[in-house]
Amino acid sequence: MTTTLNLDLGERSYPIEVGTGLLGQSETLLHRVAGRQVAIVTNSVVGSHYAAALERQIDAVAAQRITVVLPDGEAAKSWETLDRVFTALLEARFDRSALIVALGGGVVGDMAGFAAAIYQRGIEWFQIPTTLLAMVDSSVGGKTGINHPAGKNMLGAFHQPLGVLADLDVLATLPARELSAGLAEVIKHGAIADAQYLDAIERDLPKLLGGDWSAMGAVVSRSCEIKAAVVAADEREGGLRAILNFGHTFGHAIEAELGYGVWLHGEAVGAGMVMAAELSCRVDGLDRAHAQRLRALIAAAGLPVEAPAWPLETWLRRMSSDKKAQAGNPKFVRIPRLGEAVVGRVPSDDLAATVAATATLLQLPGGLGYIGPFPHPQTRPQ
Amino acid sequence: MTTTLNLDLGERSYPIEVGTGLLGQSETLLHRVAGRQVAIVTNSVVGSHYAAALERQIDAVAAQRITVVLPDGEAAKSWETLDRVFTALLEARFDRSALIVALGGGVVGDMAGFAAAIYQRGIEWFQIPTTLLAMVDSSVGGKTGINHPAGKNMLGAFHQPLGVLADLDVLATLPARELSAGLAEVIKHGAIADAQYLDAIERDLPKLLGGDWSAMGAVVSRSCEIKAAVVAADEREGGLRAILNFGHTFGHAIEAELGYGVWLHGEAVGAGMVMAAELSCRVDGLDRAHAQRLRALIAAAGLPVEAPAWPLETWLRRMSSDKKAQAGNPKFVRIPRLGEAVVGRVPSDDLAATVAATATLLQLPGGLGYIGPFPHPQTRPQ
Repeated sequence: MTTTLNLDLGERSYPIEVGTGLLGQSETLLHRVAGRQVAIVTNSVVGSHYAAALERQIDAVAAQRITVVLPDGEAAKSWETLDRVFTALLEARFDRSALIVALGGGVVGDMAGFAAAIYQRGIEWFQIPTTLLAMVDSSVGGKTGINHPAGKNMLGAFHQPLGVLADLDVLATLPARELSAGLAEVIKHGAIADAQYLDAIERDLPKLLGGDWSAMGAVVSRSCEIKAAVVAADEREGGLRAILNFGHTFGHAIEAELGYGVWLHGEAVGAGMVMAAELSCRVDGLDRAHAQRLRALIAAAGLPVEAPAWPLETWLRRMSSDKKAQAGNPKFVRIPRLGEAVVGRVPSDDLAATVAATATLLQLPGGLGYIGPFPHPQTRPQ
Repeated sequence: MTTTLNLDLGERSYPIEVGTGLLGQSETLLHRVAGRQVAIVTNSVVGSHYAAALERQIDAVAAQRITVVLPDGEAAKSWETLDRVFTALLEARFDRSALIVALGGGVVGDMAGFAAAIYQRGIEWFQIPTTLLAMVDSSVGGKTGINHPAGKNMLGAFHQPLGVLADLDVLATLPARELSAGLAEVIKHGAIADAQYLDAIERDLPKLLGGDWSAMGAVVSRSCEIKAAVVAADEREGGLRAILNFGHTFGHAIEAELGYGVWLHGEAVGAGMVMAAELSCRVDGLDRAHAQRLRALIAAAGLPVEAPAWPLETWLRRMSSDKKAQAGNPKFVRIPRLGEAVVGRVPSDDLAATVAATATLLQLPGGLGYIGPFPHPQTRPQ
């Protein structure tokens, strides 16, 4: 069963198709690749599982097709790796009417989309996300980019794809830890925009963790709808779109201080949402029972609910370099109630009390704050 | 005296201020830098002449100001050099509300504009062109970018500036050869869009070559108007904007085959326009007397009117890799009459006859086509 949403961005609107079997057969995709020069951009892991099916579909109708395989992992999100895409496109003499198809998770989508944004001043692209996180987060909104040695995601562009295929079949090979990381953004969508959706996530969580693709399809669709509504109202991230950063200001600080990749982005956002909910209790009067309920849901999804116990100064330093900050003074997204979000600066006392109450995860032998990978419940030694 | 044009691109509209003394004092600029983090991006040659005046003006009102000095010349238009801008912005902790001010010719404008297009997914920029070519060409239209080892201008973005200052005073230090190269685009504007303007350029050419800034101001304004009208009708280069490539398909082939920088871009366009006019006589019935008049004007402006005498195959190979081509089959801009342009493919016989008639410049000792710099009339040995 396939559901198609439409992300309404005026002349840059595009469809998001959610279903199964789409890699092998999708009218949406076929229509867009027919007769064109097409470059599939993927990574070595995803490519080995899924490139062949997609290549067969594309080769049936495209004028020319190349596949560019990038290394797996966040370290690949560099200019040096991106340049392999440009070199391949230029060697194949791809012109301005060529199309890039991104097949992979967030890193591949960010890089392939950015390559499309700047190749010959912009060509079209199509996105096939292969992680839950990429389906519910980076597939909506057109953010693309790479890291700079001096900062993550510091170079990029807003470049909307022609369309998105979320083929749920690919989640079968997704590690449990990455599924949980994707659920962090799903929970976030409920928390900031739709309390009833949060109820449904709580109710269906065992199915979502257990590989029920019908329940997962509903979640992917609803999360894309919520993100799409926010993005449609604020495509270039001037205001409202900031509510999507719920849990992210704290989360980015965790990722940066631990070193990127030690915790997954979704894990850092899990603990970050617990911190943001605590801040919401203090600043905006969020009901403590609701904050506790959100915390329990995050934990049940297999995500951390405590941040490392670093001193306040460490948090402040890391949060003021968050690129959403204006010259060092960070704003925080809070939820006065479940399903509603506000954005703004907060009293420094409340921030200090929040850190003291929630950044409490000590390294297990003992010391200055947890510094290892998050032990996922399904893979943790018993 | 200052003239301000408005380039009408909807929400991306911007003013172009043409006059004298603007580096030291411009309300348009002051208004946009006040209270902000500002990075002047310039090169070593232009910076040594003009950065100090601009810095004084900006420092009076900006919150923070840095100056990034890039090497001079086309070889600097690389990712490696662009990265110096990003490193400087990140070291100074410039955020998404920062502004880049480009002070220089086409290379600086292309690089600074592209840096602004992708720094933190896009920040604002302001352009201060310091060559005639940059004033009448790259200051209008928002094209930015860098070269790739496999092709010129292959990476870039459309990113409109907040505004443009064309301070005619800076033309006083512009070498005669570069002034002539800028006039190539001025003549092109007349040829494709305004026969009366072409009359005026013919009439005022001695003044333009002789440093009469009043005549020059009128030309800069009118050329910007013409280009602005074309760009406004076709911001993303889907159709009409292609007429701005008059003389450029041939010109790019000359630049590529000689090696970029051997002839200036405007010099290659000069000879390219003579070729395109010949093609127009054959395909579109342009009056031969008018083609001859255009040729004489190009020569009088100090530009080449003969292209190197390469074999037809050389031309075809170089023109099919022009990035405006669709998969190897180039379109040509022609002028059925002075002041009117059309775009499309042409019969191969007419193309061959055009090359035979116009690509006739032999290396002076004699041989396979001219391969040295164009000898400008003012600097040519007598």
